[in-house]
Amino acid sequence: MDGRPAWELLLPAAAAPARRRGRALREALRDAVRTGRLAAGTRLPSSRELAADLGVSRGLVTEAYEQLTAEGYLRSGRGSGTWVGGAARAPAAPAVRDLAPGAPDRAGAGVRVDFRPGTPDLSLFPRAAWGAAQRVVLAELAHRRLGYPDPRGLPELRGALAALLARRRGVVADPERLVVCSGVAQAATLLGHALRARGHTSVGVEDPGSPEHARLFAATGLDTVWLPVDADGLEPGPLAGSGVRAVVVTPSHQFPSGIGYAAHRRAGLLDWARAVDGFVLEDDYDGDFRYDRAPVGALQGLDPERVVYAGSVSKSLAPGLRLGWMLLPDALLDEVVERKRTADLGNTVLDQAVLARLVTSGGYDRQLRRCQRAYRARRDALVAALTTYLPGTEVSGIAAGLHVIARVPPVFGPPERFLARARAAGVVVRTLEEYGTARPGDGAVRLVIGYAHLTPAEIARGVAAVAAEYVGG
Amino acid sequence: MDGRPAWELLLPAAAAPARRRGRALREALRDAVRTGRLAAGTRLPSSRELAADLGVSRGLVTEAYEQLTAEGYLRSGRGSGTWVGGAARAPAAPAVRDLAPGAPDRAGAGVRVDFRPGTPDLSLFPRAAWGAAQRVVLAELAHRRLGYPDPRGLPELRGALAALLARRRGVVADPERLVVCSGVAQAATLLGHALRARGHTSVGVEDPGSPEHARLFAATGLDTVWLPVDADGLEPGPLAGSGVRAVVVTPSHQFPSGIGYAAHRRAGLLDWARAVDGFVLEDDYDGDFRYDRAPVGALQGLDPERVVYAGSVSKSLAPGLRLGWMLLPDALLDEVVERKRTADLGNTVLDQAVLARLVTSGGYDRQLRRCQRAYRARRDALVAALTTYLPGTEVSGIAAGLHVIARVPPVFGPPERFLARARAAGVVVRTLEEYGTARPGDGAVRLVIGYAHLTPAEIARGVAAVAAEYVGG
Repeated sequence: MDGRPAWELLLPAAAAPARRRGRALREALRDAVRTGRLAAGTRLPSSRELAADLGVSRGLVTEAYEQLTAEGYLRSGRGSGTWVGGAARAPAAPAVRDLAPGAPDRAGAGVRVDFRPGTPDLSLFPRAAWGAAQRVVLAELAHRRLGYPDPRGLPELRGALAALLARRRGVVADPERLVVCSGVAQAATLLGHALRARGHTSVGVEDPGSPEHARLFAATGLDTVWLPVDADGLEPGPLAGSGVRAVVVTPSHQFPSGIGYAAHRRAGLLDWARAVDGFVLEDDYDGDFRYDRAPVGALQGLDPERVVYAGSVSKSLAPGLRLGWMLLPDALLDEVVERKRTADLGNTVLDQAVLARLVTSGGYDRQLRRCQRAYRARRDALVAALTTYLPGTEVSGIAAGLHVIARVPPVFGPPERFLARARAAGVVVRTLEEYGTARPGDGAVRLVIGYAHLTPAEIARGVAAVAAEYVGG
Repeated sequence: MDGRPAWELLLPAAAAPARRRGRALREALRDAVRTGRLAAGTRLPSSRELAADLGVSRGLVTEAYEQLTAEGYLRSGRGSGTWVGGAARAPAAPAVRDLAPGAPDRAGAGVRVDFRPGTPDLSLFPRAAWGAAQRVVLAELAHRRLGYPDPRGLPELRGALAALLARRRGVVADPERLVVCSGVAQAATLLGHALRARGHTSVGVEDPGSPEHARLFAATGLDTVWLPVDADGLEPGPLAGSGVRAVVVTPSHQFPSGIGYAAHRRAGLLDWARAVDGFVLEDDYDGDFRYDRAPVGALQGLDPERVVYAGSVSKSLAPGLRLGWMLLPDALLDEVVERKRTADLGNTVLDQAVLARLVTSGGYDRQLRRCQRAYRARRDALVAALTTYLPGTEVSGIAAGLHVIARVPPVFGPPERFLARARAAGVVVRTLEEYGTARPGDGAVRLVIGYAHLTPAEIARGVAAVAAEYVGG
């Protein structure tokens, strides 16, 4: 039988009713490759052999092989058979998936609800509107526009975004100062290189804050200094004493604490930037979503010569588009554009043209309203579930964004015990401590709960599952 | 009249027949913004005022303002009127447009034919096939695939490209070693950063060669050393004495000289790389196009642990897609993937899925055959035109790619005189001397002629126009 027992894992599929046998076989094969039960490089039996082993028609096996080869799970060579393609292995989770922006995983073994923050509801991506815009762009874009792009971005997208950001976020948006880029991650990297070229050696990051900020700047050769955030924003004393001349902040909805920077801290931050001849990177990662009032305008509007404003479509459309923008002070513009040019010569023109169309047609505003409604309802569902199932829990921070900070009272503590029970309930959560250096030690659990990617029912089920562990144990 | 005479440039449009007056007005406005006759920031009169000045209906002006605002030529604020948006100015030509890959400009004032190399025929982009694949991808891609991507690229694309490159270019293509990136430019930048992290301080570039190679590596902090290329490839002596441990080469069709590296030079280059524990970046920029025989396999196939292979769809589909790939030695893989991650977290998933579909469906091979047929005919037309109009001209290099080297005999020289006549004829050409340090001084003119973006008729007209200057003058 030379190794054939391995194929026994396909037998249940072969036993499926005839009308869905093909699909079951493909799914079983896919699953076997994904989970590594069929290792990369494994040679598959010929379709004739496997069909005989499983007692199914050879056509069914051939079709499954072809389909999975097309999908990249399998590979087939010129007359050399079919084998498991290494490409199909589940990709190693990039570090960013554990962070903000992170990618919750609904499918992990035993995980019922994943509350990690950072991902929007990917099912809200407006496929019909995006597809319609794609068709128009493909039909109308002039041939010459398919050539090497302006590294700053398509003029029509820069114009459309400048108008949008001025209107929605109160930024001073000159299209000449706007650079289209591959999300806030690239914005940070481009800025990091530009700062290094200007002699900067370090950059400040918020504590608590996104570890990703520090990681991105570190990759450009800058040291990072953690600077404490209190209930009003970045504390001025440690900032002044840090020696940095550049800092990255999330003033509209601080990540992860959820506070909005107080007006005096916003003004003070800009005073500091002017005093040290420095710069502030404003990561407006979820500035489009505020549920209790109109969003506070971006910091950049107060001093466009000191603030680099960065945003993206990762929360409003999809992170997989890798499409964002930065608005730059005049002093940094040329260096950043040159860095963008050597980084990749510019973003893909087709997606840029599609987004431009979506923005100018009003479709992008419609999408923001749609997300806003959905996320507001999910936040309400989360707050209600916490009140019901974990009484005494306090939700802090402004009503905005895609996550909340929840302080679960000591009665459910200590933190290690709470987290063990959440794990036992199949619920994945993150604590505020994972994002910074503060350790209050008051026995309460401080959670960073992402809700945008979960339905109200999933949210309630997740919170209830954790609470049930207390009842049960 | 406070400045109103400026609007006189719109009067001819206003005088157009009624049925096309709106369009004429929009075109005149667009044109005025594009050419800078209306400068960025210029405030436009109100629609009522302009309608009165031009003697047209106010609705016509309102419509024109709205349309041009949507297109990004104009901007309008909340109640603050309409003004010329800076975004609409013709973008400054990025430096790359003058290089390989460069972007010839058919529209320059007085230019009849632009022979600068580096751009494919953008009208060959397969809009129907791309659009069809886009529709399938939008309909079928699972929601979760719209999240943060694997920075290495979509598994199905890496699998599809690995199979394609193994088949067409003879590379050793393990999907686990393939990283999707934004073209060869990003491949060079990612590699430059990785080499720096390994302690490299310099990299060798071909002389003559692409100035873009040197520029990209310089941006990562590496010094560049020009290394002479002769008729067989990179000369071993200068390479050995240079002190570099990494070099970027174009062995399949050297840019710009057009030679193919001889077998002994290919082997010698790899011997050198192993001896110095170094690496070779193989820029396979036009390896898909060979007209006289099957393409020589890529260098990478000979030693995948010493060669970084890089390619893209810039010549086969469109540079504006910014989509390419690199195959990496094991020793560089992790560092390059981490650099790709911090650079942009990965390429856009939609275009990746579309390309994967195009490759696995055979549509990409069809596109390559279509381009191959077109470019072969254009190369033949160029050689015929040179023979007819500039007799004695010798075309050197292998029959491949998108450009030739033409040695125009001294009877048409000296070079300065030839170039002056080409300019007078409205023909843009580049000389080999612009790409390297060699100065033969034999009175002949060595031209680097790009032909792929021109029709056979345009090619003949361009060569004839230069020749006519000799007859006429």
